[in-house]
Amino acid sequence: LQSRLPAVGTTVFTLMSALAAEHGAVNLGQGFPDFDCDPRLLDAVDAAMRAGHNQYAPMTGLPVLREAIAAKLAALYGHAYDAATEITVTAGATQGIITAILCAVHPGDEVIVIEPCYDSYQPSITLAGGVPVPVAMRVDAGGYSVPWDAVAAAVTPRTRMIVVNTPHNPTGTILRRADLDALAAIVDGTDILILSDEVYEHMVYDGQPHASVSRHPVLAARAFVVSSFGKTYHATGWKVGYVAAPAPLMAEFRKVHQYNVFSVNTPMQAGLAAFMRDPAPWRDLPAFYQRKRDLFRAGLANTRFTLLPADGTYFQCVRYDGISDLSESEFAQWLTREIKVAAIPVSAFYSKPTESGIVRFCFAKKDETLNGALERLATV
Amino acid sequence: LQSRLPAVGTTVFTLMSALAAEHGAVNLGQGFPDFDCDPRLLDAVDAAMRAGHNQYAPMTGLPVLREAIAAKLAALYGHAYDAATEITVTAGATQGIITAILCAVHPGDEVIVIEPCYDSYQPSITLAGGVPVPVAMRVDAGGYSVPWDAVAAAVTPRTRMIVVNTPHNPTGTILRRADLDALAAIVDGTDILILSDEVYEHMVYDGQPHASVSRHPVLAARAFVVSSFGKTYHATGWKVGYVAAPAPLMAEFRKVHQYNVFSVNTPMQAGLAAFMRDPAPWRDLPAFYQRKRDLFRAGLANTRFTLLPADGTYFQCVRYDGISDLSESEFAQWLTREIKVAAIPVSAFYSKPTESGIVRFCFAKKDETLNGALERLATV
Ligand SMILES: CSCCC(=O)C(=O)O
Ligand SMILES: CSCCC(=O)C(=O)O
Repeated sequence: LQSRLPAVGTTVFTLMSALAAEHGAVNLGQGFPDFDCDPRLLDAVDAAMRAGHNQYAPMTGLPVLREAIAAKLAALYGHAYDAATEITVTAGATQGIITAILCAVHPGDEVIVIEPCYDSYQPSITLAGGVPVPVAMRVDAGGYSVPWDAVAAAVTPRTRMIVVNTPHNPTGTILRRADLDALAAIVDGTDILILSDEVYEHMVYDGQPHASVSRHPVLAARAFVVSSFGKTYHATGWKVGYVAAPAPLMAEFRKVHQYNVFSVNTPMQAGLAAFMRDPAPWRDLPAFYQRKRDLFRAGLANTRFTLLPADGTYFQCVRYDGISDLSESEFAQWLTREIKVAAIPVSAFYSKPTESGIVRFCFAKKDETLNGALERLATV
Repeated sequence: LQSRLPAVGTTVFTLMSALAAEHGAVNLGQGFPDFDCDPRLLDAVDAAMRAGHNQYAPMTGLPVLREAIAAKLAALYGHAYDAATEITVTAGATQGIITAILCAVHPGDEVIVIEPCYDSYQPSITLAGGVPVPVAMRVDAGGYSVPWDAVAAAVTPRTRMIVVNTPHNPTGTILRRADLDALAAIVDGTDILILSDEVYEHMVYDGQPHASVSRHPVLAARAFVVSSFGKTYHATGWKVGYVAAPAPLMAEFRKVHQYNVFSVNTPMQAGLAAFMRDPAPWRDLPAFYQRKRDLFRAGLANTRFTLLPADGTYFQCVRYDGISDLSESEFAQWLTREIKVAAIPVSAFYSKPTESGIVRFCFAKKDETLNGALERLATV
């Protein structure tokens, strides 16, 4: 069998989680909480199952959940998506991403991605027959930023889509209004679409706003905006997300969605819809994670690692150039095996070998887990 | 936005379920039970959630579930799939089907499908850049059968895959050992792959065996075998299925799977694994549905519809040529609106207009639902 994805191996998340388990390391690699979700959310799912919500949901998602999502997007970002025609529930954000790509990207189309980036974007583009066009983020003493001039320079007549991600995995940076304006200037007057991965939308710190693409009229009119419940509600294993897009884009999205998964787990959808009536869980999330970020950063300040800024997500990137000259991948493995703290090499988020001497930690962990990891990291 | 799937509209299942709801019709259209799953299965999922199984499952599925699936396939079909490398849990069978196609079909490859067939096959082939090559089933007074000579004649040097489905949706026919031998004779010595949709594997009647492709060494060595828990456990809305394939094929499958959905709902997987320890639910399923089939057929014998054979699935096809000369689609709509019983036109399972004067009923319904529908159908 000739491979459609010859370059693809097992994801770094799977590899590092396995290595962490093998060496009894504290797993700050793959991004997931080591604490549990709200028992009221479990109650809501259980109640939905007991009430008999166990057969196919509508292909587009339960109306009550789509309406709750639309209400949230209107309240937070001032964009009134139509729940009937502009929102679709997906089997996790990753399925939303590949579906948006498969429905919009034709063979030979170019799609600009900004590296480092989540590892699903480029294989998804390849499967659609498209050509990923990576543009590297700038990284200097102040941290990572998007070089919009380089993005503009990468545009060609074949450019079909630009993928953005804010808050950004793995760097923990966020886009700001000026970034959205720069992106809008690039795409305005073209037929280039935007795919905006906003799965960490509720993890933006220090009182800054989340610069959702759905806030920006020029961008929102051509954007698939993807988000996830797993990150927001501490249930990454439930694999329920959603995509919002203008009706003509969403109509094409749904054609692919209905033949990809047809529909999404019904009791989980019903439980999430009931739980979403209370805005407190997502409203309180920035403060919840900011405290963990601050705890983790304060601890890291006492180690030989150099902190990069962390404005959003539950990830903290650090430089280790004062410590080792191993490659990122080797260093992350060494850290896992010898120091017993697993991290993710940022190089895994690039399509071409790129070494910046930076690894990523996930701080979505119990305080005791973070403190245990910090004690070990202080010994480096 | 130029469509990747210009011919695709909303699935017939969605349309007919909506029409049934609008007209207060008994919905014998879309295939799902109107009774609930075993409360012990709900207990098992709830226990998994409360035990904290709410974060990412391994990309390939929970080991305990893959092992339970492998044990079942070994017990039933005598094929020892390796749970570690040859089985992957999917977000429903449909996601397994598109993933098998995306990982194996290259642009320009031909894929033979046998019509009528489940409506996801051909759009999935198109999205992969492949060319669907439909071969029509034979249909005569005795019912539907696969013309293997026509399948053999459709093979070209570009043929990459043949899709089969047993028990067969929508016709309710099953393949038998002789069919598998005929298929094996076609593919033996070629590099043509098999995609075998066996989601109704536990619904084969009158003591006949399920001719799983995994039983047949020549076929199993080149086959993706797809199944579903939703059909077997009366929980079509849970969207958990699986794919079994030889390790080299499964390695390619997983490359696409990890970027399509990454992983599948963790508590549902854990609950299903626990529930699968008891073989009674699937062992008893043929008798359970055979009784419903017999009840439904006995009732239909008192109507002006002509019964076709129903050896498997929870579908019963009927001819209405003595009743009306409407097209299948018009007749199904008329039946829904005027007689208040929804059915699915078999023409919806063909890529080209094909009228056979046959519609499909789903008998996965409470006896009272079936009796209510039969009363109405007797008035036609
Ligand atoms: C889908 S598994 C990886 C989780 C994640 O997004 C990350 O760790 O970056
Ligand atoms: C995935 S919705 C349709 C259910 C089904 O397989 C059918 O009714 O044929």
